[in-house]
Order: sequence, then structure tokens, then C-alpha cells
Amino acid sequence: MNIPSIFWLVPAASVVALGFAYAFYRKMKRQSEGTERMREIAGHVRAGAMAYLRQQYKVVTVVFVVLALFFAYLAYVAGVQNPWVPFAFLTGGFFSGLAGFFGMKTATYASARTAHAAQQSLDRGLRVAFRSGAVMGLVVVGLGLLDISLWYIVLNCFVDASGAQKLVIITTTMLTFGMGASTQALFARVGGGIYTKAADVGADLVGKVEAGIPEDDPRNPATIADNVGDNVGDVAGMGADLYESYCGSVLATAALGAAAFAATGDVEMQTRAVLAPMLIAAVGILLSIIGIFLVRTKEGATMRQLLRALGVGVNVSSVLIAAATFIILYLLDIQNWLGLSFSVITGLAAGIIIGQATEYYTSHTYRPTQKIARSGQTGPATVIISGIGVGMISTAVPVITIGVAIILAYLCATGFDMAHLMSAHNLSLGLYGIGIAAVGMLSTLGITLATDAYGPIADNAGGNAEMSKLGPEVRRRTDALDALGNTTAATGKGFAIGSAALTALALLASYIEEIKIGLLHIGQTAITLPDGAERLVQEASIVDFMEFYQINLMNPLVLVGVFIGAMMSFLFCGLTMNAVGRAAESMVEEVRRQFREIKGILTGEATPDYARCVAISTRGAQREMLLPSLLAIVVPVAVGLLFGVAGVMGLLVGGLSSGFVLAVFMANSGGAWDNAKKLIEEGNFGGKGSECHKATVVGDTVGDPFKDTSGPSLNILIKLMSMVSIVMAGLTVAWHLF
Amino acid sequence: MNIPSIFWLVPAASVVALGFAYAFYRKMKRQSEGTERMREIAGHVRAGAMAYLRQQYKVVTVVFVVLALFFAYLAYVAGVQNPWVPFAFLTGGFFSGLAGFFGMKTATYASARTAHAAQQSLDRGLRVAFRSGAVMGLVVVGLGLLDISLWYIVLNCFVDASGAQKLVIITTTMLTFGMGASTQALFARVGGGIYTKAADVGADLVGKVEAGIPEDDPRNPATIADNVGDNVGDVAGMGADLYESYCGSVLATAALGAAAFAATGDVEMQTRAVLAPMLIAAVGILLSIIGIFLVRTKEGATMRQLLRALGVGVNVSSVLIAAATFIILYLLDIQNWLGLSFSVITGLAAGIIIGQATEYYTSHTYRPTQKIARSGQTGPATVIISGIGVGMISTAVPVITIGVAIILAYLCATGFDMAHLMSAHNLSLGLYGIGIAAVGMLSTLGITLATDAYGPIADNAGGNAEMSKLGPEVRRRTDALDALGNTTAATGKGFAIGSAALTALALLASYIEEIKIGLLHIGQTAITLPDGAERLVQEASIVDFMEFYQINLMNPLVLVGVFIGAMMSFLFCGLTMNAVGRAAESMVEEVRRQFREIKGILTGEATPDYARCVAISTRGAQREMLLPSLLAIVVPVAVGLLFGVAGVMGLLVGGLSSGFVLAVFMANSGGAWDNAKKLIEEGNFGGKGSECHKATVVGDTVGDPFKDTSGPSLNILIKLMSMVSIVMAGLTVAWHLF
Repeated sequence: MNIPSIFWLVPAASVVALGFAYAFYRKMKRQSEGTERMREIAGHVRAGAMAYLRQQYKVVTVVFVVLALFFAYLAYVAGVQNPWVPFAFLTGGFFSGLAGFFGMKTATYASARTAHAAQQSLDRGLRVAFRSGAVMGLVVVGLGLLDISLWYIVLNCFVDASGAQKLVIITTTMLTFGMGASTQALFARVGGGIYTKAADVGADLVGKVEAGIPEDDPRNPATIADNVGDNVGDVAGMGADLYESYCGSVLATAALGAAAFAATGDVEMQTRAVLAPMLIAAVGILLSIIGIFLVRTKEGATMRQLLRALGVGVNVSSVLIAAATFIILYLLDIQNWLGLSFSVITGLAAGIIIGQATEYYTSHTYRPTQKIARSGQTGPATVIISGIGVGMISTAVPVITIGVAIILAYLCATGFDMAHLMSAHNLSLGLYGIGIAAVGMLSTLGITLATDAYGPIADNAGGNAEMSKLGPEVRRRTDALDALGNTTAATGKGFAIGSAALTALALLASYIEEIKIGLLHIGQTAITLPDGAERLVQEASIVDFMEFYQINLMNPLVLVGVFIGAMMSFLFCGLTMNAVGRAAESMVEEVRRQFREIKGILTGEATPDYARCVAISTRGAQREMLLPSLLAIVVPVAVGLLFGVAGVMGLLVGGLSSGFVLAVFMANSGGAWDNAKKLIEEGNFGGKGSECHKATVVGDTVGDPFKDTSGPSLNILIKLMSMVSIVMAGLTVAWHLF
Repeated sequence: MNIPSIFWLVPAASVVALGFAYAFYRKMKRQSEGTERMREIAGHVRAGAMAYLRQQYKVVTVVFVVLALFFAYLAYVAGVQNPWVPFAFLTGGFFSGLAGFFGMKTATYASARTAHAAQQSLDRGLRVAFRSGAVMGLVVVGLGLLDISLWYIVLNCFVDASGAQKLVIITTTMLTFGMGASTQALFARVGGGIYTKAADVGADLVGKVEAGIPEDDPRNPATIADNVGDNVGDVAGMGADLYESYCGSVLATAALGAAAFAATGDVEMQTRAVLAPMLIAAVGILLSIIGIFLVRTKEGATMRQLLRALGVGVNVSSVLIAAATFIILYLLDIQNWLGLSFSVITGLAAGIIIGQATEYYTSHTYRPTQKIARSGQTGPATVIISGIGVGMISTAVPVITIGVAIILAYLCATGFDMAHLMSAHNLSLGLYGIGIAAVGMLSTLGITLATDAYGPIADNAGGNAEMSKLGPEVRRRTDALDALGNTTAATGKGFAIGSAALTALALLASYIEEIKIGLLHIGQTAITLPDGAERLVQEASIVDFMEFYQINLMNPLVLVGVFIGAMMSFLFCGLTMNAVGRAAESMVEEVRRQFREIKGILTGEATPDYARCVAISTRGAQREMLLPSLLAIVVPVAVGLLFGVAGVMGLLVGGLSSGFVLAVFMANSGGAWDNAKKLIEEGNFGGKGSECHKATVVGDTVGDPFKDTSGPSLNILIKLMSMVSIVMAGLTVAWHLF
């Protein structure tokens, strides 16, 4: 075993994260859950959420068993795959599921307690909600790094190779555990997304529109399902999504680092390059915890002040991480440490810029959303047209930001070696730089995910306060907390999409490393380039592989792959949109049935059958998530078998580019419609109940699946397609060889 | 001069096309235009359409003069460009504009005559409308081939080179005249698209929704503008779009043919390869004319019978062209003539399949559109959600069709040489095959464009009949003709998008040829590959250029280019969506003002000020088209200067893939919403005036800019970005060299 002592900082940081998460959890649990009524409602939501999670984990278990058996077949019978893959796959899925379970459990315990704390003061409410959200953030990063550390230790003990090749094998093997996290995230995001919006749309269509009762009214049978939905979609789904990005970026960068320095034969430098992303992530955890403690506010804080309260935490963490990066990379004495540090900074900065741009396009303090609200005066059609227009235009800034980040991260990592910018050596360094930029962006995840998970907790606290008929002062405070959550939800989505794109890019780069390992695994030790030159696989550069597989833009297989990738994003979105539509329809029918058959619901004399609505949403989500999920797994495999490595690379690039742009468009259109409605509810353009308001309610309802189902699911699609391709790399090369 | 005698078939066919167009036009003009009132209304529409065209041509002239001067500067002062470009650019634009002018003039003369003919019988109405549409079809293909023929003759006389190089220079020079057609098409499609939907949405929002008067009611001040819009958007815009595809595919394929056989030194074979696409197009014209004569129907024909009447014409033409292709290529004695013939067939077949798929997803005789109509029962939000879902799912078939067509065309052209599928020789043959598949798809344009241009003529005839208060029997006949037009409009859009994608692909392939010429032009005669090998530019293969510029999927410049390309599609769409919104708002204000200020409009005692609405739509369209148009021209140049050839190739592939998918999605969602509304108006789900109907009217209004502005404009974007890159190839290589 040959593990440098500095590595142990990584598992240590993960234990610290889990320790703080546990402490926050215990402290939250010690708070009072309020009145009998509050406890009862929270109990309903908790039971519903756990019932959903149990059901989902059942389905997921079946899928995992089937896939693990398939991987075992490929590894042990067909002999085209690394023997560790089935196990790595299972642990990745298990840890991701565990993180979702803990996060959601905490969130469902926290909502009533937040409402109760808000009875005392705004700051207390904020702190209970935010620190409960931080449990999710810390559990995700803690379990993620724990899984990474464990595998790093295990593989260091068992991998039978030496020199530069050993680390290459270790890191490419570890990368496959991301497939487990990806699969788990797929079901969490898609299932959760369908659940939450089926319940939301169903509750709104019958409750608000037909029966004319307000949001979160206990007379609405779907209201508990709606609150459950916030937890399963926005807590568990978002958590699994970012767990995957987090692990994926660290693992892909480690693999790129191992590859970048493999040719030099300098194993020590290679080890440092592998450890760098892990250490940045580890230090990011510790500094995120400091940021979490800085979040506090005072009574009567305005929206701007509340935003600043969260901003202080995130910004202080970011600045500290930036500073720490220079120190870590300097101490690691990694080649071109200064340039690589700047690569990390570009990632960090890109995350912040995308967040700001998202806020501009979705917050009603700015012109775009105000314009959508104003267009409500000419009816729902113009609201939809202008919302789609704004969403499409809003894609420019994030794409340019990511583009600039890619180029800068590359240039910094290669030390601006403009004369040989694309030499084989600089290419691997540059790709490593892009990977480490992704790690930089995600290094603040401990606290950024806390601000995300905070949102649904505050939302549920508001729901609880409404249903428990707490006083107007409490309701006012929970409303303020909820409004804050809406803004952080929008910026959080921008962050999730941006990090997914960078992570997918890092995965794309490491795909070629997996192809290399796959070739070696099946005994192919040399490749012949088109010009006749021979290269040993072990020594072949990325540029050689590009030539060998002719992964250039004139290869029709690449072009067809790009087309299919672009189409996959749209198809996946279309399927999830329709899934929400269908699931919402069953919900509408059930709510109508209850209003009709259970007498006295609307007068408050009878209690609706909440559990049944929860069950319907659960069943709908489970049924509807299968087809799109299957497609996301099967298509990359099929493209690999039909069109080979060139086709797969095309597929991934096509899916990544249009999936990223489509996801930004959908998230921002949805967010802008939501806030345009809120702007009118605050009394503008005729206020609540006006025709203009009704028009924006239509926009908001359309926006629901945009921003909470289809858009976020694309994050998973672009990462999962890369992961599937990576895991199937061995099969792809073997298939086309024999 | 060395022009083989078979070439003269090309100008001959173009003269025949123009001759038949003139004959159809004369015959149509001899028909009676009906009553005084009918003539008056047709006069208003004609005056408005011509006023718009004059205004547009003024703007376009300014743009053309500026661009031509810029090209002249690049050619004569900077010396980085072919000296013929400014002239080729101007003739391309001039002929395209001429085709638009003739087509629209015919259409505006034909509408009242169609209404009058429909007073006699359905067949007479169909024939007047269809043969007038055929004028547009024949003028487009006739002028297109005329321009191509003239330049071929001129350049053959003047180009000072010999052997294989001469044809390479001729064809790459001719390709740049596509830039003129592209620029003209840009303004026609974008301006026309904004015009027609601003008028339509404006007329509907105030007329139908606020004042409660029916469609095409003469009391609505915007009704003439609405009818003008059909002509400027759907006749002139569609015509310019397909003129560009037609010329672009023939020219790109000729350039690819010249390149494919340049290395062999067999100038005779090279000449045949250059002539093949022109001859297929020429024969396509003659056989389209036969098809046009076959379109006829009988009284009381059902929708299905009417569709079959058109189908007979198109299908007979297609089959004849398929058969003729084998004969032409056999007689030309071109290498692998049988394989290339099958490449042509794949293109023909792909066009038909995409048309069928479009019909399935947008016609209300099938489930998807019926489902959208049904979702109207739960309000406008679910209509929008399900329409977007259907549109996104509908992208799968066209993408897979184009993908299969690309692969098959490539394989057929290379004679299924699986062992050396991607050798330099096979690559150029295969790309030639893809180009000739595009030519195959577009060879039926004479008749397919006739079925497209027929739509707005029938639509206007219906409007004329309504405004002239002709009897219910006439109105019933024009309604039948109009409904047929709606279906052909949807399938026509699918055809336009599919052919744009294939054409853009052919242009992409010929971009590398332009780069080659650009390098030679600035005196760079050799390139050094990454492995150190030297290649003479003149002899370097496409594969060499891919390696030289490292146009592979791991090059960050390529990746960033792909991202920007994907983003451009969305940004362009978003800008045009917003443009329609803004222009429609001015229209709404004007119509409201007229209702308010001109007393007696609604009682029919006063005539509204139609001209003012026409002027407002015209001004709005001209103002709003500038920003997106400028962007489409500037971005490829900027990417070329910043990121070089690799970045440009990325941009084109990213824009092409996501632009194609996005265009299909928008066109099909829009078409499905339109027909969902029609299904309800036929008495289903509550019929006209029900809540369900109102919900689908919202869908239809949203769909208007989807299917008639933003979606079709993407066709132009993907072709124009390629054209700009091709014309700027010289500047790009010079910039990065010095």
C-alpha cells in the first residue's frame, strides 16, 4: 500500500461533515414540534414521504440487482469488464440512497419545528430551517467523500499493477461507482420530479381553480401529497442529483490526473494529481461548515437582507476555498500549481455568475419577469409566449460563462502554452484543468446544497402554519422564509445545471481513458493509426485515440451521434412532461371524486383521504419514470454497439450541449413564470383574482414541470449517458473488435 | 471552355420551368376575379403585400450593398477572398428576391380568382389555387437552376486554372452565391414570420377575444394585414427558404463532387460528378411538371380524397425521379453509379417519411393531437403542457430518419466498403453521397413547393369569400381547400426542415473545401500535421485537415463551439418569439384605438383603416428582424476569428443538431395545437365556445409563432451560419495565420 499521509485528510473531512450533520440533526430534533395539530400534519407529510421513498427504493433495488447481475456477467463471464464494477456500482447507489434518506428524514422533521421556531422570531425560524438543510448538504458531501476514500484505500490494497499504470487502473475503476450514483439519481430526480408536480398541478387545478380554496388548505385532499412532493422532489431529488455531480467531478478529475501524468512516469506527481481534487473537496467541506455558522438574520429583515444573510455564508466559504486552493496545490507541489489554482477559481466563479444570471432572469425585481407579468394583461397566450422567449434568451449567459470557463481552465492548466496548445501533453493537462474547474465549482456544495434543501423545508413550514391556523405574524415570517427559498431554489437550479455540464465534460474526457483500459482488458495492446503508425495502447495519447477512432466532425457516425444526442434531450423532456400530465390527471380525478363522495370536506366537517392522494402520486411517479429512465440507459448502449466509440462520443457531446441549453431554458422559464405570478399577487397589474392574475397562474402551472421535472431531469440525463458509456466502454470495444 | 453537351439540359430545364410558370400565370390571370367587392378586397391584400415587399427589399438592398462592399474589400484590398464572391453574392440575392416577388404577385392575384372558381366547382377552385402555387414552385427551381447554369458557364470561361483544380475552384466559387440566397432568405423568413404572426395574433386577441367577431371579418381592422401576412410569410418566406436549400444542396454537392475526384486526376469523372446533382435537379423539374398536371379532384371530395389528389402528383413525380436517377447516373457513367442512385433514393425517401411523421403528430385524425384537444378539459395550462410534450416527442422520428439517411447515403456511395469505411477516399465519396441525398430530397421541389404555396392562396380565397359574403356553398368549398392547405403546410414544414438539415450537412462538408481554397489563395501551399508529416494543401485529404486543425471532440475549441451553436438556436428562437410578442402588442393597441376612435366600425357603418394596420405590421417586422438577423451573420464570423476553424466546425454542428431538433419540436407543437383547436371546432369536447375550446385557442395562439416564425426561422439559421462560415473561410484562415 502506498497512500501518502495527506490523503487521510479526505476521510477525516468526510467524518467531520457527517459529525456536524448528526449534531445539526440532534439539535433540530430537540426543538419543539409545536401544537398537537402541527405534529399531526408533519406526521402525515413524514409518513407520505417515507412511504414514497420505500416504494421508490423497492423499484430501484430491482433495477440495481438486474444491472449488477448484468455487470457481473460482463465482468466474470464475458470478460469484457473490470471485476470491481458490480461492487463499485452497488456502493455508489447505496450511499446515494442513504444520503437521500437522511436528508429527507431531517427535512420532514424540520418543517413543523421551523414553523414553531418562527413563532418566536424570524432568525430562529431561519436557523432551524437552514441548519436542517445543511444536514442534507453535509450528508451528501460526507458520504460522497467517504465512498471515494474507502474505494481508494481498498483498490490501493488490491489492484495488482505497478508504477504509473496502477493509479490509472484505480481511478478508472473508481469512476464506475459513479454509475451507481447516477442510476440512483435518475430515479430520484425523475420519479421525484413527476411526483411533486403531479401532486402540485393536481392540487392546484381542482383546489384553486375549481373549488376556489387557497393553497395549502387542509380541505384539499391533495395538499399533503403536495407537501410530500416538495420533499421527495426538491430535497431527495436535488440531493441525489448533486451527489452524482460531486462524486462524478472528483472521480473524473482523478482519472484525468492519473492519465495526464502517466506518460511522464513520474508516479509521485501522478499521485498528487489524483489527490488534488479529493483534497480540494475535503477542504471545501470544512470551509463550508464555517459558512453555515455565519448564516443568521435579525427580526423584520427584508428579502434583500435575508438573501444577504445566505449570501454571506456562501461567499465567505467561496473566498476561503479559493484561498485554500492555492495553499493546497502549492503544498502538493503539483506541476504548474499556480495555473491549476486559477482553473479551480474559474469553476468557482462560473458557478457564482450562473447563479447571478439565473436570479436576473427569474426574480421579479428585474425586467424580464416583470415583462412576463405585464403580458398577462393580454391573456395567458402572451404570458406563455413571453415566458418561453425570456427562457430561451436566458440561455446565452450560462452558455457563454461555461464556454469561457472551459477555455480559461484549459489555458491556465497548460500555462498558456499557446505555441503547442493542442499537443498531446497539453491536451491531457488542459482536460485535467477543466475537470478540476468542475471540482472547484462543486467544492462549496456543503453550503450551496444547504441553501437548496432549506427551500422545501421553509415551504413545508409555511404549509404547516397555514394548515395549523397559526397567527398572521407567524404566517408572515414563514412567508418571508418561503419567498427566500423560492429565490435560492432558482439559483440552486442554475448551479446544479452548470455543475452537471462541467461534470459531464470531465466524464467525457475520461471516457477515452476507460476505452484504453477496456482495450487492455481484452488483450488489445496496440492500435494502428490511419496513417499506418503503430502505438502501444498504454502509451497512446488522447490525440492518437481521436485519430484511431476518427472522432472528428466529418465522421458521419459522429454526426449521427450528435443528432441523436440532441434528440434524446428533447425526447426525454417530452416524455417527462407527458408523464406529469398523465399523473396529474389521475390526481385531478381522485380529488374530484373525494369532493363528490366524501360529504363535508369543503365545509371542514370531514377529513379528506390524504393517504390516497399520496398513494396515487407515488404510483403515478413509479409507473411514469420507467420509460424515460430505461431510454437514458439503453440508448448509449445501443449507440455504442451500433456506431462504436465515435458514435458514443457524438451522442455525449450532442446530448450534453443541447441538454444543457434546454435545461437552462426550462428552469428559467419556469422560475420566471412562478415569480411573474407572485409579482401580481403582490398587488401589481390588478393583483390577486384579476384576469391578469389568472393568465399568470396558467404560466405558473406550465412552468411547474418545466422547472421541477423536465429541466432538472436533464442534468441526470447528460451525466447518466456519460456514465453508462463509461461503464460500457469495455463492451463497446470488445463488440467492435470481434 | 470545356462544357459537355449534356450540361445544356440544365439551363434548358430551367427555361422550361419558367415557361410553364409563365403559362400558368397567364392562364390564372385570364380567370375572372369575381365581383366588385372581391376585386376590392384582393386589391387591398395585393397592395399591402407589395408595400411590404417593397419595404423589405429596401432594407435588404441596404444590407446587400454593405455586405457586398465588405466582400469587395476582403477580395480586392485584403486579398483574402475570391474576387468573384461579391458578384456571386449579389446574383444569389437578386434571383431569390425575384422568385419571392413573382410568387407573391401570383398568389395575391390568385386568391379572389380561386374563390370565384370555387363558385363553379371544387375541382376548378383546387386547380386555380394549385396551379398558382405551382408558379411559385417552378419559379424557384427555374431561377435557381438558371443562376447556377449562368455561373457555371461564366466561370468555365474565366477561371484561370487547369486540370482537376479548375473544377474545384469553379464549384467552390459558385458555392458562395448561396450566401446571397441565404441572406435574402433570412430577411424573408424572419421578417415575413414576424409580420404574419404579429398581424394574426393581434387580429385574434382583439377581434376574436375582445370584440367577439369571427375570423376574417371585414370589421376587424387587422384582417387585411392578417391576409397579407399569409402571403409574405408562407409564400415569399417559404419560397426564399427553399430556394436557398435547393441551390445550396446542388452547389455543395457539386463542390463535394469536384473534391472527391480531384485526387484521382480523372477530370472527366470529376466533371460528371459535378454535373450529376445539376442533372438530377433538372430532370426533377421536368418530372415535377408532369406531377402538377395530375392534380385534380371531383365535386364533394372528402379531405382524404383531396389529400390523395395532391399525393398523386407528388408521389408520381417522386417515383419518376427515382427511376430517372438510375438512368441519369448510368448514362453519366459515374463511378459506382448504382450506389449513388441509392443515395439519391434515401434522400427522396427521407423526405417522404418526415412528411408522414409530421402528419401523424399534427393531424387531428391521430392520437397525439386528439390527446391535446382532450387535455383542454382541464384548462389552457394542460393544453400547453401536452402540446409541448407531443412536440418534443415528435422529434424522434425525423432525427432517426435523417440519421439513417446519412448513414445509408454514405454507405451506398462508398459501395459498402466496410473494411475501409473511413479512408480518405471513401470519406470524400461518402460525403458526396450525403450531398446527393439532399439533392434527391429537394428534386421534387417544383411540386412540393406548389403544395405549400397553395395553402395561403386557399386561405386567402376563404378570407375573400368571407369578406365578400359569398354563399355558404362557396364558403364550404373554400373551407375544404383551406383545411387541405393546413395539412400540406404542416408536412411542407417538415420537408423544409429536413431538407435544410441535409443541405446544412452538405455545406458543412464543403466548408473544408473552402478552407483549402482559402489557404491556397493566401499563398499557403503546405500544412504540417501534428505528427510532423507535411502535406501539400492541394493534395491534403479531409482526414488530413481534421488532424491539422484538430477538429475532434476533445478539442475544447470544438466543444465550446458546439455549446455556442446549441445556444444560438435557442437565443434566435427566443428573440423571434419576443419580436412577435412586441409587434403583436402594437397591433393590439392600433386595433383597439380604431374601435375606439372610428365610430361605426363594429356596426359595419364605417370602414376600418386597413392600411394603417398593414403599415404597423410592416414597420414592426422590419424593426424586429434586424437584431436576430445580425446575430446570425456576426456570430459565425466572431467564432471564426476567436476560435478558428475548429471552433467554427463545432458551432455549425452544434447549431445544426439542436437547431434541427428545436425546429421540428416547434413546428409540430404549433401544428398540433392548431389542429387540436380545429378538432374542437368540429364539435368535439364541447365544441366552439366551450371552455375547452377557449383553452385550445390559447394553445393555438402560442403555437402561431412556434410554427410560423421561430421554428421556420431556424431553417435559415442553420444554413446561413454555414454559408457565412464558407464565405468567411478565407478571412478565418488568414486571420489565424498572421
